[in-house]
Amino acid sequence: MKKICWITTGGTIASIEGEHGLYASSKGETLYHLLGNMTSQYDITIHDLFTIDSSNMQPEEWKLIGECVFERVNDFDGIVITHGTDTMAYTASALSFMLSNLNIPVVLTGSQLPLSHPLSDGQENMRLALAMAASAHPGVFVAFNRKIILGARAVKVRTTGFHAFESVNYPYIATVNSLGLQIHEELLPSLHGPCRLIDTLCEDVFLLKLIPGMNPMIFDMLMHMDIKGVVIEAFGIGGLSYIRRDLTGRIVDLLDHGISVVVCSQCLYERSDFSVYEVGKRALEHGVIEAFDMTSEACVTKLMWVLGQTDDPEQIRFMFNHNYVNEIIVRR
Amino acid sequence: MKKICWITTGGTIASIEGEHGLYASSKGETLYHLLGNMTSQYDITIHDLFTIDSSNMQPEEWKLIGECVFERVNDFDGIVITHGTDTMAYTASALSFMLSNLNIPVVLTGSQLPLSHPLSDGQENMRLALAMAASAHPGVFVAFNRKIILGARAVKVRTTGFHAFESVNYPYIATVNSLGLQIHEELLPSLHGPCRLIDTLCEDVFLLKLIPGMNPMIFDMLMHMDIKGVVIEAFGIGGLSYIRRDLTGRIVDLLDHGISVVVCSQCLYERSDFSVYEVGKRALEHGVIEAFDMTSEACVTKLMWVLGQTDDPEQIRFMFNHNYVNEIIVRR
Repeated sequence: MKKICWITTGGTIASIEGEHGLYASSKGETLYHLLGNMTSQYDITIHDLFTIDSSNMQPEEWKLIGECVFERVNDFDGIVITHGTDTMAYTASALSFMLSNLNIPVVLTGSQLPLSHPLSDGQENMRLALAMAASAHPGVFVAFNRKIILGARAVKVRTTGFHAFESVNYPYIATVNSLGLQIHEELLPSLHGPCRLIDTLCEDVFLLKLIPGMNPMIFDMLMHMDIKGVVIEAFGIGGLSYIRRDLTGRIVDLLDHGISVVVCSQCLYERSDFSVYEVGKRALEHGVIEAFDMTSEACVTKLMWVLGQTDDPEQIRFMFNHNYVNEIIVRR
Repeated sequence: MKKICWITTGGTIASIEGEHGLYASSKGETLYHLLGNMTSQYDITIHDLFTIDSSNMQPEEWKLIGECVFERVNDFDGIVITHGTDTMAYTASALSFMLSNLNIPVVLTGSQLPLSHPLSDGQENMRLALAMAASAHPGVFVAFNRKIILGARAVKVRTTGFHAFESVNYPYIATVNSLGLQIHEELLPSLHGPCRLIDTLCEDVFLLKLIPGMNPMIFDMLMHMDIKGVVIEAFGIGGLSYIRRDLTGRIVDLLDHGISVVVCSQCLYERSDFSVYEVGKRALEHGVIEAFDMTSEACVTKLMWVLGQTDDPEQIRFMFNHNYVNEIIVRR
């Protein structure tokens, strides 16, 4: 019987209806009883790490989760983490980088309706997460609505529907059909050494989603805030304004101040490519880093992780563009 | 024969390959010859307004386009605007509000490959835009990849694919099949008076997409920048951090400074609802405005447009929550 550790962190799956709305509350033991007999095929150990609404999940919590997982990778066949859906994609991306060469499956799941609700999607998602955790395929994954998504490719795209997550710019790792869990092994990240926890994260990262007419003064403000890295969600494949409000010039100012600048697209799907437009090419010449087919969630967490390890610009660029867990595949 | 005015503004559809990448260049007359005989069914007047890469499209250009359209609504059956794809959804949303009670079809289109490219999607998109412009159904629309999208519901979701735009939280206005252009008239916005141009826009609007761990000091910076309105892309249905980094408290600071705060979701699909979580309810009590099922593009441009007309908080809230062109339908 496979040994699974179930780490609870709160979220809707563990929520109850309070006087002022939903709040994260139930302990793993209570949730366990709501799962019925699906748990009988696994040897499950529950670890209640904390109980929060995932809007409060921050780098500090990612470190607690990372440590909790790392301490258990040699004692369990797999780990399931129940988590709120709102920031699950960020946590999954962060853990993908922090748990270097992860040697067991670590599967995040949750639900759009509390497990205690008669129509909850929680039971179905837990069933899938447990199966993936028992699969012996290492990596960080999100299990949701009968699909397994690579952690660093997950994005929450629906606020209420059960099909809440998309696998962005990457196929599903696994789906469920009449043959059971169908895992596409060729999509799994490969291991290059022993599992290590690298959990120093730089929190001084800002995400800037452009809008037409945005005041370029924001770049001065970011310098004033001692931001170390900025991820810019540009227009389309990599557009920035340069008439009237010259963002390219201001990005060069950031770079001159030693701030790392990553540019991705505000389009959900497909890669960015800064070499397509003249203005993008000029930015590249000055040292802007491209995100290519990475999600915004992966960009932000990877930049936090890279800046936690080095402040050397060349090393930052090398690490950011290096493919660790299939988070970056299609470049130009 | 229907009289169509074709306003050109540049964009990829009008681009040519230069030494340093693509740049907007060709005039309407040149483009017209690339369209072949599809133009023979319409009486087309070309008006070259300007020639820019749409990453440079800003409120100043929206006013020029709005005026150009408004001057022509009584002389033409419909108007086609060719435009870069990168910010087309923002322009379509802005025009939807600025051209109040618009009485003819105004159809934005463009392409992912220049019209001069042998595999361009530009001819197909222009064919569709012309048909919609000749349809006599008033409103601002985006014509792309055989679908007509309501202007205030369009979002660019793909950086390279021809299926670049989605109609978010609203069905397609029209599609093309063996019966020709199939228009769903029940989805069209209704008119409530004569067409008016209301083109005063407040440019001091900022879009803040949250990430876990975001430094709340950004709110001080926005006050320092004299921002008048902030659109916050919260987590999921409306999540904000309040442990350690208390965003709810800082939002109240913004409101106390007379800054309008709109909250939407960073999920692409489905509505936000701030009343679901306790923290959201508290923010609502302090005067945060909800975006419900509006796109981020519609939120930003509508807030610019509302703040251009009034600085009275109750009036701002009323106008922002009022449905003008079917941009806001599903609330709670």
